[in-house]
Amino acid sequence: MRQASTTLGFDTPGRGLIDITAAVDEWLRATGVQEGVLTLLCRHTSASLLIQENAAREVRSDLMAWLEQVAPEGDHYRHDDEGPDDMPAHLRATLTGVTLQIPVLRGRMRLGAWQGIYLAEHRRRPHHREVAVHLMGE
Amino acid sequence: MRQASTTLGFDTPGRGLIDITAAVDEWLRATGVQEGVLTLLCRHTSASLLIQENAAREVRSDLMAWLEQVAPEGDHYRHDDEGPDDMPAHLRATLTGVTLQIPVLRGRMRLGAWQGIYLAEHRRRPHHREVAVHLMGE
Amino acid sequence: MRQASTTLGFDTPGRGLIDITAAVDEWLRATGVQEGVLTLLCRHTSASLLIQENAAREVRSDLMAWLEQVAPEGDHYRHDDEGPDDMPAHLRATLTGVTLQIPVLRGRMRLGAWQGIYLAEHRRRPHHREVAVHLMGE
Repeated sequence: MRQASTTLGFDTPGRGLIDITAAVDEWLRATGVQEGVLTLLCRHTSASLLIQENAAREVRSDLMAWLEQVAPEGDHYRHDDEGPDDMPAHLRATLTGVTLQIPVLRGRMRLGAWQGIYLAEHRRRPHHREVAVHLMGE
Repeated sequence: MRQASTTLGFDTPGRGLIDITAAVDEWLRATGVQEGVLTLLCRHTSASLLIQENAAREVRSDLMAWLEQVAPEGDHYRHDDEGPDDMPAHLRATLTGVTLQIPVLRGRMRLGAWQGIYLAEHRRRPHHREVAVHLMGE
Repeated sequence: MRQASTTLGFDTPGRGLIDITAAVDEWLRATGVQEGVLTLLCRHTSASLLIQENAAREVRSDLMAWLEQVAPEGDHYRHDDEGPDDMPAHLRATLTGVTLQIPVLRGRMRLGAWQGIYLAEHRRRPHHREVAVHLMGE
Protein backbone atom coordinates (compact mmCIF):
# COMPACT_ATOMS: atom_id res chain seq x y z
CA MET A 1 0.00 0.00 0.00
CA ARG A 2 1.33 3.44 -0.82
CA GLN A 3 0.11 7.02 -1.09
CA ALA A 4 0.68 10.13 -3.17
CA SER A 5 -0.20 13.79 -2.64
CA THR A 6 -0.28 16.83 -4.87
CA THR A 7 -1.90 20.21 -5.39
CA LEU A 8 -3.70 20.97 -8.63
CA GLY A 9 -4.10 24.66 -9.50
CA PHE A 10 -6.80 26.15 -11.72
CA ASP A 11 -7.34 29.69 -13.00
CA THR A 12 -11.06 30.34 -13.15
CA PRO A 13 -12.62 32.92 -15.52
CA GLY A 14 -15.16 33.94 -12.87
CA ARG A 15 -18.47 32.34 -11.97
CA GLY A 16 -19.00 28.93 -13.52
CA LEU A 17 -18.17 25.24 -13.50
CA ILE A 18 -14.75 24.03 -14.65
CA ASP A 19 -14.36 20.40 -15.63
CA ILE A 20 -11.26 19.14 -13.78
CA THR A 21 -11.81 15.43 -14.50
CA ALA A 22 -9.00 15.18 -17.06
CA ALA A 23 -6.48 16.92 -14.79
CA VAL A 24 -7.28 14.57 -11.90
CA ASP A 25 -7.24 11.53 -14.18
CA GLU A 26 -3.87 12.47 -15.67
CA TRP A 27 -2.29 12.73 -12.23
CA LEU A 28 -3.92 9.46 -11.13
CA ARG A 29 -2.54 7.57 -14.15
CA ALA A 30 0.96 8.88 -13.53
CA THR A 31 0.93 7.32 -10.05
CA GLY A 32 0.29 3.85 -11.49
CA VAL A 33 -2.07 3.00 -8.61
CA GLN A 34 -4.62 0.40 -9.73
CA GLU A 35 -6.96 0.13 -6.74
CA GLY A 36 -7.48 2.73 -4.04
CA VAL A 37 -9.31 5.87 -3.03
CA LEU A 38 -8.81 9.45 -4.16
CA THR A 39 -9.58 12.44 -1.92
CA LEU A 40 -10.04 16.00 -3.20
CA LEU A 41 -10.27 19.15 -1.07
CA CYS A 42 -10.99 22.60 -2.49
CA ARG A 43 -8.88 24.90 -0.31
CA HIS A 44 -11.25 27.88 -0.52
CA THR A 45 -14.50 29.08 1.03
CA SER A 46 -16.09 30.67 -2.06
CA ALA A 47 -15.36 27.88 -4.53
CA SER A 48 -16.37 24.23 -4.23
CA LEU A 49 -16.28 20.75 -5.77
CA LEU A 50 -19.10 18.66 -7.18
CA ILE A 51 -19.75 15.70 -9.45
CA GLN A 52 -22.37 16.24 -12.17
CA GLU A 53 -23.40 15.63 -15.76
CA ASN A 54 -20.52 15.88 -18.22
CA ALA A 55 -22.51 15.83 -21.47
CA ALA A 56 -25.35 18.36 -21.70
CA ARG A 57 -23.97 21.87 -21.24
CA GLU A 58 -27.42 23.13 -20.22
CA VAL A 59 -27.24 21.13 -17.00
CA ARG A 60 -24.33 23.27 -15.89
CA SER A 61 -25.96 26.60 -16.76
CA ASP A 62 -29.22 25.53 -15.11
CA LEU A 63 -27.27 24.44 -12.03
CA MET A 64 -25.48 27.77 -11.70
CA ALA A 65 -28.76 29.66 -12.28
CA TRP A 66 -30.42 27.60 -9.55
CA LEU A 67 -27.59 28.31 -7.09
CA GLU A 68 -28.01 32.03 -7.82
CA GLN A 69 -31.68 31.72 -6.95
CA VAL A 70 -31.28 29.58 -3.81
CA ALA A 71 -28.51 31.79 -2.40
CA PRO A 72 -29.14 35.14 -4.09
CA GLU A 73 -27.09 38.29 -3.99
CA GLY A 74 -28.72 41.05 -1.96
CA ASP A 75 -28.18 43.65 0.74
CA HIS A 76 -29.53 41.45 3.54
CA TYR A 77 -26.15 39.92 4.46
CA ARG A 78 -24.04 41.23 7.32
CA HIS A 79 -20.85 40.03 5.61
CA ASP A 80 -20.16 42.06 2.47
CA ASP A 81 -16.48 42.96 2.86
CA GLU A 82 -15.65 41.91 -0.67
CA GLY A 83 -18.83 42.94 -2.45
CA PRO A 84 -22.34 41.63 -3.10
CA ASP A 85 -21.12 38.32 -4.57
CA ASP A 86 -19.05 37.49 -1.48
CA MET A 87 -21.55 36.00 0.98
CA PRO A 88 -23.64 34.21 -1.68
CA ALA A 89 -20.39 32.56 -2.79
CA HIS A 90 -19.84 31.20 0.74
CA LEU A 91 -23.41 29.87 0.81
CA ARG A 92 -23.19 28.18 -2.58
CA ALA A 93 -19.86 26.63 -1.60
CA THR A 94 -21.47 25.30 1.59
CA LEU A 95 -24.43 23.83 -0.29
CA THR A 96 -22.23 22.00 -2.79
CA GLY A 97 -19.33 21.14 -0.45
CA VAL A 98 -15.54 21.24 -0.71
CA THR A 99 -14.50 17.60 -0.34
CA LEU A 100 -14.97 14.57 -2.59
CA GLN A 101 -13.64 11.05 -2.47
CA ILE A 102 -13.67 8.67 -5.37
CA PRO A 103 -12.92 4.94 -5.44
CA VAL A 104 -10.28 3.83 -7.97
CA LEU A 105 -10.25 0.45 -9.72
CA ARG A 106 -8.14 -0.88 -12.60
CA GLY A 107 -6.30 2.44 -12.60
CA ARG A 108 -9.41 4.53 -13.26
CA MET A 109 -11.80 6.57 -11.12
CA ARG A 110 -15.06 4.71 -10.69
CA LEU A 111 -17.19 7.62 -11.95
CA GLY A 112 -20.35 6.80 -13.89
CA ALA A 113 -20.40 7.28 -17.66
CA TRP A 114 -22.09 10.68 -17.36
CA GLN A 115 -20.20 11.99 -14.35
CA GLY A 116 -17.50 14.64 -14.39
CA ILE A 117 -15.69 16.40 -11.53
CA TYR A 118 -16.28 20.13 -11.44
CA LEU A 119 -14.60 22.99 -9.64
CA ALA A 120 -17.35 25.53 -9.01
CA GLU A 121 -16.22 29.16 -8.97
CA HIS A 122 -18.81 31.22 -7.10
CA ARG A 123 -17.13 34.64 -7.25
CA ARG A 124 -17.80 36.93 -10.22
CA ARG A 125 -14.15 37.66 -10.93
CA PRO A 126 -11.35 35.27 -11.99
CA HIS A 127 -9.49 33.51 -9.18
CA HIS A 128 -6.62 31.09 -8.80
CA ARG A 129 -7.94 28.02 -6.98
CA GLU A 130 -6.09 25.10 -5.42
CA VAL A 131 -7.36 21.55 -5.00
CA ALA A 132 -5.44 19.35 -2.55
CA VAL A 133 -5.32 15.77 -3.86
CA HIS A 134 -4.49 12.57 -1.99
CA LEU A 135 -4.40 9.00 -3.22
CA MET A 136 -4.02 5.81 -1.23
CA GLY A 137 -3.88 2.37 -2.82
CA GLU A 138 -1.62 -0.05 -4.61
CA MET B 1 -3.54 -3.18 5.51
CA ARG B 2 -5.73 -4.37 2.67
CA GLN B 3 -8.58 -3.16 0.51
CA ALA B 4 -11.72 -4.45 -1.15
CA SER B 5 -13.95 -3.06 -3.91
CA THR B 6 -17.40 -3.89 -5.19
CA THR B 7 -20.46 -2.49 -6.92
CA LEU B 8 -23.84 -2.67 -5.23
CA GLY B 9 -26.87 -2.44 -7.54
CA PHE B 10 -30.33 -1.24 -6.56
CA ASP B 11 -33.60 -1.13 -8.47
CA THR B 12 -35.52 1.96 -7.41
CA PRO B 13 -39.33 2.22 -7.67
CA GLY B 14 -39.07 5.87 -8.70
CA ARG B 15 -38.71 8.97 -6.53
CA GLY B 16 -37.91 8.21 -2.91
CA LEU B 17 -35.28 7.16 -0.38
CA ILE B 18 -34.05 3.57 -0.28
CA ASP B 19 -32.33 2.33 2.86
CA ILE B 20 -29.10 0.64 1.71
CA THR B 21 -27.53 0.31 5.17
CA ALA B 22 -28.08 -3.44 5.43
CA ALA B 23 -26.64 -4.12 1.97
CA VAL B 24 -23.49 -2.11 2.77
CA ASP B 25 -23.18 -3.71 6.19
CA GLU B 26 -23.53 -7.22 4.82
CA TRP B 27 -20.70 -6.64 2.33
CA LEU B 28 -18.55 -5.02 5.02
CA ARG B 29 -18.95 -7.99 7.38
CA ALA B 30 -18.02 -10.44 4.63
CA THR B 31 -14.66 -8.67 4.21
CA GLY B 32 -13.75 -9.28 7.85
CA VAL B 33 -12.11 -5.84 8.10
CA GLN B 34 -12.22 -4.57 11.70
CA GLU B 35 -10.86 -1.02 11.43
CA GLY B 36 -10.83 1.12 8.33
CA VAL B 37 -12.75 3.52 6.15
CA LEU B 38 -15.55 2.86 3.70
CA THR B 39 -16.15 5.01 0.61
CA LEU B 40 -19.40 5.07 -1.38
CA LEU B 41 -19.96 6.74 -4.76
CA CYS B 42 -23.35 6.90 -6.47
CA ARG B 43 -22.45 6.56 -10.17
CA HIS B 44 -25.34 8.73 -11.43
CA THR B 45 -26.23 12.41 -11.77
CA SER B 46 -29.95 12.21 -10.92
CA ALA B 47 -29.65 9.97 -7.86
CA SER B 48 -27.58 10.61 -4.73
CA LEU B 49 -26.46 9.36 -1.32
CA LEU B 50 -27.19 10.71 2.13
CA ILE B 51 -27.18 9.72 5.77
CA GLN B 52 -30.37 10.48 7.71
CA GLU B 53 -32.87 9.33 10.32
CA ASN B 54 -33.64 5.60 10.12
CA ALA B 55 -36.60 5.50 12.52
CA ALA B 56 -39.40 7.99 11.82
CA ARG B 57 -40.73 7.44 8.30
CA GLU B 58 -42.10 11.00 8.23
CA VAL B 59 -38.57 12.41 8.19
CA ARG B 60 -38.02 10.80 4.79
CA SER B 61 -41.30 12.01 3.28
CA ASP B 62 -40.74 15.53 4.65
CA LEU B 63 -37.20 15.47 3.24
CA MET B 64 -38.35 14.48 -0.24
CA ALA B 65 -41.16 17.10 -0.12
CA TRP B 66 -38.61 19.75 0.86
CA LEU B 67 -36.29 18.81 -2.01
CA GLU B 68 -39.24 19.15 -4.39
CA GLN B 69 -39.85 22.63 -3.07
CA VAL B 70 -36.21 23.81 -3.06
CA ALA B 71 -35.55 22.47 -6.57
CA PRO B 72 -39.02 22.41 -8.13
CA GLU B 73 -40.12 21.08 -11.47
CA GLY B 74 -41.04 23.80 -13.94
CA ASP B 75 -40.58 25.10 -17.47
CA HIS B 76 -37.80 27.52 -16.54
CA TYR B 77 -34.94 25.06 -17.15
CA ARG B 78 -32.98 24.99 -20.39
CA HIS B 79 -32.22 21.28 -19.93
CA ASP B 80 -35.38 19.20 -20.29
CA ASP B 81 -34.29 16.43 -22.68
CA GLU B 82 -35.76 13.74 -20.50
CA GLY B 83 -38.85 15.52 -19.19
CA PRO B 84 -39.78 17.95 -16.42
CA ASP B 85 -38.29 15.80 -13.65
CA ASP B 86 -34.87 15.67 -15.31
CA MET B 87 -33.19 18.94 -14.31
CA PRO B 88 -34.71 19.06 -10.79
CA ALA B 89 -33.23 15.57 -10.30
CA HIS B 90 -29.75 16.90 -11.13
CA LEU B 91 -30.22 19.79 -8.69
CA ARG B 92 -31.44 17.58 -5.84
CA ALA B 93 -28.55 15.18 -6.44
CA THR B 94 -26.13 18.12 -6.27
CA LEU B 95 -27.64 19.43 -3.03
CA THR B 96 -27.40 16.06 -1.30
CA GLY B 97 -24.18 14.81 -2.93
CA VAL B 98 -22.99 11.52 -4.40
CA THR B 99 -20.08 10.49 -2.17
CA LEU B 100 -19.96 9.35 1.45
CA GLN B 101 -17.18 7.94 3.59
CA ILE B 102 -17.73 6.17 6.86
CA PRO B 103 -15.18 5.11 9.49
CA VAL B 104 -15.27 1.44 10.48
CA LEU B 105 -14.38 0.11 13.94
CA ARG B 106 -14.76 -3.34 15.50
CA GLY B 107 -16.11 -4.54 12.16
CA ARG B 108 -19.03 -2.10 12.12
CA MET B 109 -19.70 1.25 10.47
CA ARG B 110 -19.48 4.04 13.03
CA LEU B 111 -22.95 5.41 12.24
CA GLY B 112 -24.97 6.89 15.07
CA ALA B 113 -27.89 4.93 16.52
CA TRP B 114 -30.43 6.85 14.40
CA GLN B 115 -28.44 7.05 11.20
CA GLY B 116 -29.10 5.04 8.04
CA ILE B 117 -27.53 5.28 4.58
CA TYR B 118 -30.00 6.19 1.86
CA LEU B 119 -29.87 6.06 -1.91
CA ALA B 120 -32.05 8.95 -3.08
CA GLU B 121 -33.83 8.41 -6.38
CA HIS B 122 -34.80 11.77 -7.82
CA ARG B 123 -36.38 10.63 -11.11
CA ARG B 124 -40.09 9.83 -11.22
CA ARG B 125 -39.65 6.47 -12.91
CA PRO B 126 -37.87 3.33 -11.69
CA HIS B 127 -34.14 3.12 -12.42
CA HIS B 128 -31.30 0.69 -11.87
CA ARG B 129 -28.64 2.47 -9.81
CA GLU B 130 -25.06 1.49 -9.00
CA VAL B 131 -23.07 2.41 -5.94
CA ALA B 132 -19.29 1.92 -6.17
CA VAL B 133 -17.93 0.76 -2.80
CA HIS B 134 -14.35 0.75 -1.54
CA LEU B 135 -12.96 -0.35 1.82
CA MET B 136 -9.48 0.08 3.20
CA GLY B 137 -8.40 -1.25 6.57
CA GLU B 138 -7.27 -4.35 8.39
CA MET C 1 0.92 2.44 6.79
CA ARG C 2 -1.14 2.60 9.96
CA GLN C 3 -4.45 3.92 11.20
CA ALA C 4 -5.98 5.51 14.27
CA SER C 5 -9.58 6.00 15.40
CA THR C 6 -11.25 8.10 18.07
CA THR C 7 -14.46 9.85 19.04
CA LEU C 8 -14.46 13.57 19.75
CA GLY C 9 -17.33 14.86 21.89
CA PHE C 10 -18.68 18.40 21.91
CA ASP C 11 -21.31 20.10 24.06
CA THR C 12 -23.20 22.59 21.92
CA PRO C 13 -24.98 25.64 23.38
CA GLY C 14 -27.85 25.25 20.92
CA ARG C 15 -28.13 26.41 17.33
CA GLY C 16 -24.86 27.64 15.85
CA LEU C 17 -21.47 26.74 14.41
CA ILE C 18 -18.73 25.39 16.66
CA ASP C 19 -15.14 25.55 15.44
CA ILE C 20 -13.68 22.07 16.00
CA THR C 21 -10.51 22.60 13.95
CA ALA C 22 -8.21 22.83 16.97
CA ALA C 23 -9.62 19.68 18.57
CA VAL C 24 -9.14 17.69 15.37
CA ASP C 25 -5.67 19.12 14.83
CA GLU C 26 -4.58 18.31 18.38
CA TRP C 27 -5.59 14.67 17.96
CA LEU C 28 -3.93 14.49 14.54
CA ARG C 29 -0.62 15.81 15.90
CA ALA C 30 -0.65 13.30 18.74
CA THR C 31 -0.76 10.44 16.21
CA GLY C 32 2.45 11.61 14.57
CA VAL C 33 1.12 10.73 11.11
CA GLN C 34 2.78 12.92 8.45
CA GLU C 35 0.92 11.99 5.27
CA GLY C 36 -2.55 10.48 5.03
CA VAL C 37 -6.24 11.15 5.00
CA LEU C 38 -8.58 12.07 7.83
CA THR C 39 -12.28 11.11 7.86
CA LEU C 40 -14.91 12.74 10.08
CA LEU C 41 -18.48 11.53 10.62
CA CYS C 42 -21.05 13.44 12.69
CA ARG C 43 -23.06 10.67 14.35
CA HIS C 44 -26.34 12.60 14.43
CA THR C 45 -29.19 13.52 12.09
CA SER C 46 -29.88 17.05 13.34
CA ALA C 47 -26.26 18.27 13.50
CA SER C 48 -23.72 18.30 10.67
CA LEU C 49 -20.17 19.08 9.58
CA LEU C 50 -18.90 21.72 7.17
CA ILE C 51 -15.77 23.59 6.20
CA GLN C 52 -16.10 27.37 5.97
CA GLU C 53 -14.52 30.76 6.64
CA ASN C 54 -12.64 30.92 9.94
CA ALA C 55 -12.03 34.67 10.09
CA ALA C 56 -15.12 36.88 9.61
CA ARG C 57 -17.71 36.01 12.24
CA GLU C 58 -20.48 37.48 10.07
CA VAL C 59 -20.05 34.66 7.56
CA ARG C 60 -21.18 32.20 10.21
CA SER C 61 -24.21 34.22 11.32
CA ASP C 62 -25.22 34.84 7.69
CA LEU C 63 -24.83 31.14 6.98
CA MET C 64 -27.05 30.11 9.87
CA ALA C 65 -29.63 32.76 8.91
CA TRP C 66 -29.65 31.45 5.34
CA LEU C 67 -30.19 27.87 6.51
CA GLU C 68 -33.14 29.07 8.60
CA GLN C 69 -34.61 30.64 5.48
CA VAL C 70 -33.95 27.72 3.09
CA ALA C 71 -35.32 25.13 5.54
CA PRO C 72 -37.67 27.17 7.73
CA GLU C 73 -39.56 26.15 10.81
CA GLY C 74 -43.30 25.82 10.23
CA ASP C 75 -46.36 23.66 10.73
CA HIS C 76 -46.16 22.08 7.27
CA TYR C 77 -43.99 19.13 8.33
CA ARG C 78 -45.45 15.72 9.12
CA HIS C 79 -42.55 14.96 11.48
CA ASP C 80 -42.70 17.17 14.58
CA ASP C 81 -42.24 14.70 17.41
CA GLU C 82 -39.63 16.83 19.09
CA GLY C 83 -40.96 20.29 18.33
CA PRO C 84 -40.92 22.84 15.48
CA ASP C 85 -37.12 22.91 15.23
CA ASP C 86 -36.90 19.13 14.72
CA MET C 87 -37.60 18.59 11.03
CA PRO C 88 -35.82 21.79 9.87
CA ALA C 89 -32.76 20.49 11.74
CA HIS C 90 -32.85 17.25 9.71
CA LEU C 91 -33.12 19.27 6.48
CA ARG C 92 -30.25 21.62 7.34
CA ALA C 93 -28.09 18.63 8.32
CA THR C 94 -28.88 17.00 4.97
CA LEU C 95 -28.02 20.15 3.03
CA THR C 96 -24.65 20.57 4.73
CA GLY C 97 -23.79 16.86 5.16
CA VAL C 98 -22.33 14.74 7.95
CA THR C 99 -19.06 13.43 6.51
CA LEU C 100 -15.80 15.17 5.62
CA GLN C 101 -12.42 13.88 4.56
CA ILE C 102 -9.27 15.94 4.62
CA PRO C 103 -5.85 15.14 3.16
CA VAL C 104 -2.91 15.40 5.59
CA LEU C 105 0.62 16.39 4.60
CA ARG C 106 3.69 17.20 6.71
CA GLY C 107 1.62 16.39 9.77
CA ARG C 108 -1.03 19.04 9.07
CA MET C 109 -4.49 19.05 7.53
CA ARG C 110 -4.34 20.55 4.05
CA LEU C 111 -7.05 23.15 4.77
CA GLY C 112 -6.77 26.52 3.06
CA ALA C 113 -5.66 29.53 5.09
CA TRP C 114 -9.26 30.69 5.64
CA GLN C 115 -10.85 27.31 6.21
CA GLY C 116 -12.03 25.94 9.53
CA ILE C 117 -13.98 22.78 10.37
CA TYR C 118 -17.36 23.45 11.95
CA LEU C 119 -19.82 21.29 13.81
CA ALA C 120 -23.23 22.76 12.99
CA GLU C 121 -25.85 22.40 15.71
CA HIS C 122 -29.30 22.76 14.16
CA ARG C 123 -31.45 22.16 17.26
CA ARG C 124 -32.40 25.11 19.47
CA ARG C 125 -31.34 23.48 22.70
CA PRO C 126 -27.89 22.34 23.85
CA HIS C 127 -26.87 18.82 22.83
CA HIS C 128 -23.92 16.52 23.31
CA ARG C 129 -22.60 15.59 19.87
CA GLU C 130 -20.09 12.95 18.81
CA VAL C 131 -17.79 13.05 15.81
CA ALA C 132 -16.23 9.73 14.76
CA VAL C 133 -12.68 10.31 13.52
CA HIS C 134 -10.46 8.02 11.47
CA LEU C 135 -6.94 8.57 10.18
CA MET C 136 -4.94 6.46 7.76
CA GLY C 137 -1.38 7.28 6.77
CA GLU C 138 2.23 7.04 7.86
